[in-house]
Amino acid sequence: MDPDQPDTGVPASPRRRRFIALAAAAGAAAVPGAAQAATGDDVPTNLPPNLPPNVPPNVPPQVPEWMRAPGAGFLSPPYGLPSPFEKNVVRKLPDQVAAFPTATRTPLQSLFGSLTPNGLFFERHHAGVPAIDPAQHRLMLHGLVERPLLLSMKDLLRFPAVSRSHFIECSGNSIAEFKAPGQGTVQDIHGLLSGAEWTGVRLSDVLAEAGLLPSASWILAEGADAAAMSRSIPLAKALDDALLVYGQNGEMLRPEQGYPLRLLLPGFEGNMNIKWLRRLKVGDAPFQTREETSKYTDLMPDGTARQFTFQMGVKSVITAPSARQVLDGHGFREISGLAWSGQGRIARVEVSLDGGRHWEAAALDGPVQSRALTRFRCPWVWAGQEAILQSRAFDEAGNVQPTRAALLASDGQHSIYHYNAIQSWQVARNGEVSNVHV
Amino acid sequence: MDPDQPDTGVPASPRRRRFIALAAAAGAAAVPGAAQAATGDDVPTNLPPNLPPNVPPNVPPQVPEWMRAPGAGFLSPPYGLPSPFEKNVVRKLPDQVAAFPTATRTPLQSLFGSLTPNGLFFERHHAGVPAIDPAQHRLMLHGLVERPLLLSMKDLLRFPAVSRSHFIECSGNSIAEFKAPGQGTVQDIHGLLSGAEWTGVRLSDVLAEAGLLPSASWILAEGADAAAMSRSIPLAKALDDALLVYGQNGEMLRPEQGYPLRLLLPGFEGNMNIKWLRRLKVGDAPFQTREETSKYTDLMPDGTARQFTFQMGVKSVITAPSARQVLDGHGFREISGLAWSGQGRIARVEVSLDGGRHWEAAALDGPVQSRALTRFRCPWVWAGQEAILQSRAFDEAGNVQPTRAALLASDGQHSIYHYNAIQSWQVARNGEVSNVHV
Repeated sequence: MDPDQPDTGVPASPRRRRFIALAAAAGAAAVPGAAQAATGDDVPTNLPPNLPPNVPPNVPPQVPEWMRAPGAGFLSPPYGLPSPFEKNVVRKLPDQVAAFPTATRTPLQSLFGSLTPNGLFFERHHAGVPAIDPAQHRLMLHGLVERPLLLSMKDLLRFPAVSRSHFIECSGNSIAEFKAPGQGTVQDIHGLLSGAEWTGVRLSDVLAEAGLLPSASWILAEGADAAAMSRSIPLAKALDDALLVYGQNGEMLRPEQGYPLRLLLPGFEGNMNIKWLRRLKVGDAPFQTREETSKYTDLMPDGTARQFTFQMGVKSVITAPSARQVLDGHGFREISGLAWSGQGRIARVEVSLDGGRHWEAAALDGPVQSRALTRFRCPWVWAGQEAILQSRAFDEAGNVQPTRAALLASDGQHSIYHYNAIQSWQVARNGEVSNVHV
Repeated sequence: MDPDQPDTGVPASPRRRRFIALAAAAGAAAVPGAAQAATGDDVPTNLPPNLPPNVPPNVPPQVPEWMRAPGAGFLSPPYGLPSPFEKNVVRKLPDQVAAFPTATRTPLQSLFGSLTPNGLFFERHHAGVPAIDPAQHRLMLHGLVERPLLLSMKDLLRFPAVSRSHFIECSGNSIAEFKAPGQGTVQDIHGLLSGAEWTGVRLSDVLAEAGLLPSASWILAEGADAAAMSRSIPLAKALDDALLVYGQNGEMLRPEQGYPLRLLLPGFEGNMNIKWLRRLKVGDAPFQTREETSKYTDLMPDGTARQFTFQMGVKSVITAPSARQVLDGHGFREISGLAWSGQGRIARVEVSLDGGRHWEAAALDGPVQSRALTRFRCPWVWAGQEAILQSRAFDEAGNVQPTRAALLASDGQHSIYHYNAIQSWQVARNGEVSNVHV
C-alpha cells in the first residue's frame, strides 16, 4: 500500500485476487464460511449420498429435506414467478404515502447487474393503468406530414426493429432529498429508476413513411390513458434515437409500462416516454400541454420556472450497502451500485469512504451502453470503522455528478425535479447504514 | 439491383431506408396501416380530445373505452405480470408429451431482442424443483484442496460479483430433427434454449480460497435436488469463465433455475450447469456419474459412445417467421432470429430465401457477447412467392453451422444430443410456414 495515501480501506489495486488477500491481511475472515466451517459444532449424523471421507468438520447434519423426494409439481407454472423466499423483493409505495398514490418503486437494494426485471420495474401513472386490447389499439400520426397514418400493432411489427438497453428515471426521483435526508431504504429514496432492453421501431422510420413537411419541428405525443398524458417532443430527438417500443426485456411491454406501445426517448425524463401511445401530432412549436406548463417545470431560486428540462442528469447511487441495512460482519465486502446519465455513456465512477475527501475509481461492468444503467463495483474491507460512503459519476459528455451543496446552490430548494446530487450513506461502528446529508 | 444477382427478395443494401422503398417498389403497401387509413370506411362520430381538423379519413370512431375512466386498481401488483392479452405466451410442453414430462420450452416465436424473461426461461429437471430455504442452503467445497469450505449464501454474496449474458441450451434441444421434421412451432422444436444476464461469483475465486492441490484436474458438481444431479467439470473450465450464480436478469435465480445457487459453465451443455448447487468435490479424474455414462453421451454411427461433448455447437434459427405461422400480407417484413455458439461470439449470420443456394449477410444486434444469444435481422419483401428460409451462423472460433446432411454424415442418426443443423422453413404461396428437411 502506498504510504503517501490514506488507508481508506479500499485496496489500491483493482485486481480481484488481492481483494481477498487484503481482507485477510486486515485481520478479517476472508470468507466467513471458511471460519464457520472451522467453528461449527454440529456432528454429521446422516451423510449425503456419495459423501467422501475427507468431509469438513461440520457438514450439514443430514440430507436436506428438499433432496428426499422429487420437487412438488415437478414442472413450474407456464409463466414462472420468484421463490416464495423472495416475497419481500417487490415494488412498493414509499413510507410516506400520499392520499392518492400514483407510483411504486423498484427494490434497488435487492437487485443485481444492470437490468430491472419487468415485474419490478417502477411505475408512475397519471390516471392508472388502462386495459388495452392490442388488436384494437391504433397509433395516429398526423399534423405537418405529407401522409397521415393510422397504424395498428401488426403494422408496427412489420417495420425493421431494434433492441437497445436504456434506463428510465422519473424526473421526481429522489426529490425529498432537496429538503432533508429520507429515512427509508434506497428503494424509498431513489427507486423511481429502472432499466430494460427495449425493442421497437425507430420513430424516424415511421416519420419517414408519413413524410415531414418543411416547418415540422415539434411532435405532440399523447397516451391512451384516461389522462391522455401529453408532452411535446423536439423533432431533433425524434429523428435521433427515439423509439416506438412494444418489447421490454424480451417480451411484450407490461401493462403498467404502456402495453402495447410506448414512446421511448433515451435519457429524457420519465414522463416524456409516453405510455399507451396513441397519437403523434407534428407541429412547428411546443404544444404547451398541462404536463409541461403547470407540471414538470423547475421552480428556480429567483421565482422563474425552467421549462423543458428534458435530459436526466448524470447520477449514481450505492445500492450495497445502503440505508437501513446492517453490515453483518467485519472483513471483505464489495461496494456496488448503479450509475446512469441522460447524455450518453458513463465514463467513470468514483467511490469515497470518507464523505468525499478521497476518491477511488470503481470498476464498471461492461459492455457500458449509452443512456443505460451501469453497475459499478469497488472492493472494501470493513473492520468496524465509521465511514461515509459516496459515489460520483462522470459521463462521456463531460458532466460530473454534483454534490448536494452544489446542486442546491444552482437550483435552490424550490424545485421538485431533477435531483441528481451525490448520495451519502453513513456507516456506524455497529454496522448500521443511514442516509445523511454532509 | 445488381442484374447479375438473382432476385431473391432480399434488398441488396442493408440500409433500412431502402427496405421500405423497395417494399413499395415491389408493389406491396410499404406500411399496411397507410393503405388501411386510405381505404377505411368508418366515419368519425366522437372524436378524441384535442383532435385536430386534419384527421385522416378513418380515425377510430370514438374515444376508446380505456380512456374514459382511470385504470382499474390504479397501481399494478407489487410483483407485476404480463397483460392478460399475452396469456398464450408461456412455457409449454411439446406436442408429443412423454408420460413423465420433465421439460418446458421457451416461446421463441413471441420474444424480442436477446433476453429471455425469467418467467419464460426453459426448464429441464431430473427430479422436479426443490423448495430450498436459502438461509439453510450450503455449498460444500472439498476433495483435493488445502482448506475444505462450507459456504452459506451470505458468504457467497460477500465475494466480488460479476454479471454476464450467456445462453443455456439443453443438449437435447431440437433432437427430434435427427429423424423427421417436427410439426410444432419453433417453441416445440427448438425451445430448450434461453438467455439471461447472470450475476454471481467467479468459481476461480472460490477455488483460490480453498487452495487447489497440485493433482487437482476435475471437479464434481452436485445439485440439491432429489436426483442429486451430478456432472464432472474439467478444471480448466472452472478456472476460465465458470461462475456460481445467484442472480438472473437482475433478481435472484428462479426456483426452476436453481434457486438459490447454480453453476454456470458458459457455452457448455445445459445439464452441466448444475442447479441447486450444494457440493463441489475436486478430484484428479472424471467422476463417471450416471449422467455422463448412461446419459448425455452421443451414440456414433460405429456404435461407440462419444463422451464429454461439453461445448454446444454454433447454431441459429429464424424465429420470425417460423413454423405454423401464416404471413398476414404481402410487402416488407423483417426476418429475425437468434444465433449462439458455445465457443465464443457470433461472427456472422447469413440468411437464404431459396433453401441454401444463395446467402445474404444478416445484421446483428449489438453488443455481441461471447456465448450469448445474438439477435439477427434481415429485410425481406414477400410478394406471394414460395420460399425456403434458412439461417446459418459462424462463430469467432471459425465454426460454421452445418447443413442437416453434413451433420447426419458426421454424427449419424443414433445420437439424441447436440443437433445444431441449419433449420429450413418453407413458405407456401398462401403464406403458411412449415418445417421441412431439404
